[in-house]
Amino acid sequence: MAVIKPSLAKGTRDFSPVEMEKRNYIFDTIKRVFTKYGYREIQTPSVENLQTLTGKYGDEGDKLIFKILNSGDYLAKVPMNLLEERASSPLIPHIAEKALRYDLTVPFARYVVMRQHELTLPFKRFQIQPVWRADRPQRGRYREFYQCDVDVVGSESLLNEAEFVLIYHEALANLGLNDFTIKLNNRKILTGIAEILGKPELIVDMTVAIDKLDKIGLDGVITELLDRGFSAADLEKLQPIIQLQGSNVEKLERLKQVLASSSAGLQGIDELETVLGYVEKLTGDAELLNRFIVIDITLARGLNYYTGCIFEVKTNEVSMGSIGGGGRYDDLTGMFGLKGLTGVGVSFGADRIYDVLEELGLFPESAAQSTNVLISNFDKLAELYALPLLQKLRKADIAAELYPTAAKLKKQMAYADAKKIPYVILIGEEEIQSGLLSLKNMQTGEQRKMDETALLMLLSSS
Amino acid sequence: MAVIKPSLAKGTRDFSPVEMEKRNYIFDTIKRVFTKYGYREIQTPSVENLQTLTGKYGDEGDKLIFKILNSGDYLAKVPMNLLEERASSPLIPHIAEKALRYDLTVPFARYVVMRQHELTLPFKRFQIQPVWRADRPQRGRYREFYQCDVDVVGSESLLNEAEFVLIYHEALANLGLNDFTIKLNNRKILTGIAEILGKPELIVDMTVAIDKLDKIGLDGVITELLDRGFSAADLEKLQPIIQLQGSNVEKLERLKQVLASSSAGLQGIDELETVLGYVEKLTGDAELLNRFIVIDITLARGLNYYTGCIFEVKTNEVSMGSIGGGGRYDDLTGMFGLKGLTGVGVSFGADRIYDVLEELGLFPESAAQSTNVLISNFDKLAELYALPLLQKLRKADIAAELYPTAAKLKKQMAYADAKKIPYVILIGEEEIQSGLLSLKNMQTGEQRKMDETALLMLLSSS
Repeated sequence: MAVIKPSLAKGTRDFSPVEMEKRNYIFDTIKRVFTKYGYREIQTPSVENLQTLTGKYGDEGDKLIFKILNSGDYLAKVPMNLLEERASSPLIPHIAEKALRYDLTVPFARYVVMRQHELTLPFKRFQIQPVWRADRPQRGRYREFYQCDVDVVGSESLLNEAEFVLIYHEALANLGLNDFTIKLNNRKILTGIAEILGKPELIVDMTVAIDKLDKIGLDGVITELLDRGFSAADLEKLQPIIQLQGSNVEKLERLKQVLASSSAGLQGIDELETVLGYVEKLTGDAELLNRFIVIDITLARGLNYYTGCIFEVKTNEVSMGSIGGGGRYDDLTGMFGLKGLTGVGVSFGADRIYDVLEELGLFPESAAQSTNVLISNFDKLAELYALPLLQKLRKADIAAELYPTAAKLKKQMAYADAKKIPYVILIGEEEIQSGLLSLKNMQTGEQRKMDETALLMLLSSS
Repeated sequence: MAVIKPSLAKGTRDFSPVEMEKRNYIFDTIKRVFTKYGYREIQTPSVENLQTLTGKYGDEGDKLIFKILNSGDYLAKVPMNLLEERASSPLIPHIAEKALRYDLTVPFARYVVMRQHELTLPFKRFQIQPVWRADRPQRGRYREFYQCDVDVVGSESLLNEAEFVLIYHEALANLGLNDFTIKLNNRKILTGIAEILGKPELIVDMTVAIDKLDKIGLDGVITELLDRGFSAADLEKLQPIIQLQGSNVEKLERLKQVLASSSAGLQGIDELETVLGYVEKLTGDAELLNRFIVIDITLARGLNYYTGCIFEVKTNEVSMGSIGGGGRYDDLTGMFGLKGLTGVGVSFGADRIYDVLEELGLFPESAAQSTNVLISNFDKLAELYALPLLQKLRKADIAAELYPTAAKLKKQMAYADAKKIPYVILIGEEEIQSGLLSLKNMQTGEQRKMDETALLMLLSSS
């Protein structure tokens, strides 16, 4: 067995104990909110049949799916001409029948279709699992990363949309964020705008362009719209809509006038009003309605996918792309032959949220501590004395360790420091004779003597 | 996009909400024990460089590793003769530089070597993640399954071995199991036996054969040993050792006599005595020492790997293979060039434990329930009345849902039943006028009227 220098596969990461505790803190916080709103966890396999995934993410997406080589003599039955021609792409289905999950939505759709006869609708599920993409790795972009999705299928009620606003608001607030924007739009409003311009066929071009307003500014958007087939007259109509100002209510009122002749547009407005109405009735929270929620008709996100409401969340406390997004898709399961099942869902960008909390110092102290107390180990006699105490601590639900050998005290203290263990129990000859143990507080350096009962009480409450 | 009939990849599984809650119950129970003993979680990527994994699991193992096809024009630079000869195996390193994790031990060794300068030893970690193997799927054997490993590296102390016994005992007891056997052996005892037979070179043949005692009986073992090069005289010496009877203390005493001339053998015995001594000092638990722990010198498990203590756990309540196992390996990280770092660890067979708990009916009721209360939805008026109540329930940390549309009551009740929601709040005209809400207990069918305050109190405590 040749010795090789160990390395990580490109675009992948290990997570250390400290990182895991912070990641679990984020996931647990979000999960608790999902559960409170009636969502339940499912998991699907990392490995799917390649044909389950192919064709769902566009041609570019298909290329980014990681394919798994068939086992055994996988070349045996491959057409020889494909090998001779080095036909990489056409060969794939012959040598790779499986692939790694690319997102959580397509496997979820497969799950729903396969279990359609046992599921009670509406079906509310969340799913927190890794996905894999053969993207070029770069800062903040990985080939293996977690998605954190929450969706409901089989319910048209806009109460669901309103509850996703509440879920975002509550989960992010619980994580300590207090200045973020939940942007809302509706695909039907975008349809309406393309209709009143008389260019419904250019809806994709229109939305791709105005979606860039943040990045390229109004002039850039105008140039791009002209390039994409809109006239100066169209732009005159479009400009006031793109630059819609005022409160959410004012924006919707203005849109009603502009889109008066488009039934799709009016329906989109009505849906947003219904969502806002639900949020108001549920919470009565004016700050949520007027500060956190922002109607933004330039918001598009995967437009070809969403058919109703569209969500996106941005933090305003640090510079960072969106930390969440989602929307309604009227035909989630159609790709697997089950028509007419509507779904709506959002997702949390856990990796970005991690970076935001790190930058703002919002991780709680306790998210990076596990063991409560270390018992030092001076010699065999002290070890013998320590063993029953160690187990008493654990019986009292106190995470405890005995340093496993009689090493130098400095080394044992360095161990406690490295693991951020807050207390060390020192047991020497004096302690054994008196029955009074020395407890050192590693943060303050303070050292106190106490008997076992007092020790257990103090550590239980810490 | 052609519609295809959805299916799972062979040997993989979906986990429904009910299954996930049961699985999480197992993982959470085990994790709490790991944490109490000072172990902390890490995660490594699912995808590793193929060369990190190749050669670590033997030739058979190498074949079972799932390889990931390179992206892009992966055939471009492949030697043409390999294609023309359909040379499936030799082609692999040319077209697949990545692979799926096969176990958690090798990635952990890689992790330790890559972080050797930042880790404080002893390093105690646990890891609960899926692994993938291209095995032929069969009942109870999957191609994607979870491993649940706990290991410490950089500590020779046998206190670690003793604590793994306690971890098994505590975690399985917390899961409700009360009749299981923690088998212990030591590789050095097996070395000693081969030595006193004068055939140290046949140690692998010997242990492979006697490891089958449970399955093929004594006669079968004898036949196999004769086939593998042992003489009738050897068997005469071996037989009493294989069939060692009595308490753990008696077995060790008998072994001391038999292995008196083997220093390796005596060291193995001494190590087991030290482990039992630690367990006694830690717990003073005679039942653990005499009933749960069983010295079993036929126990071998991946012998070429372990160098000291060997563990295996079996339940005696249902018929099932081992539900856990592990041991010490003196050169964990040598494969990556870091010599002399000892490790010891055990793992829990989560899938089998799941089946055991299911068969014995040991999953707690609450492991399959999430939402506490459903508010029924009769009409727009009732919905309007329900919305602020819904949010009050959630503010009180009660998982609550409002049925999202005014469907037939029967349908709403079926929804509550399917999700095992224990309470339903019924809001009709009468309730709105009186302010007294009807609360239905879905298990007993009992229905009571109460005001909001009483309702919140009752549900908070349920």
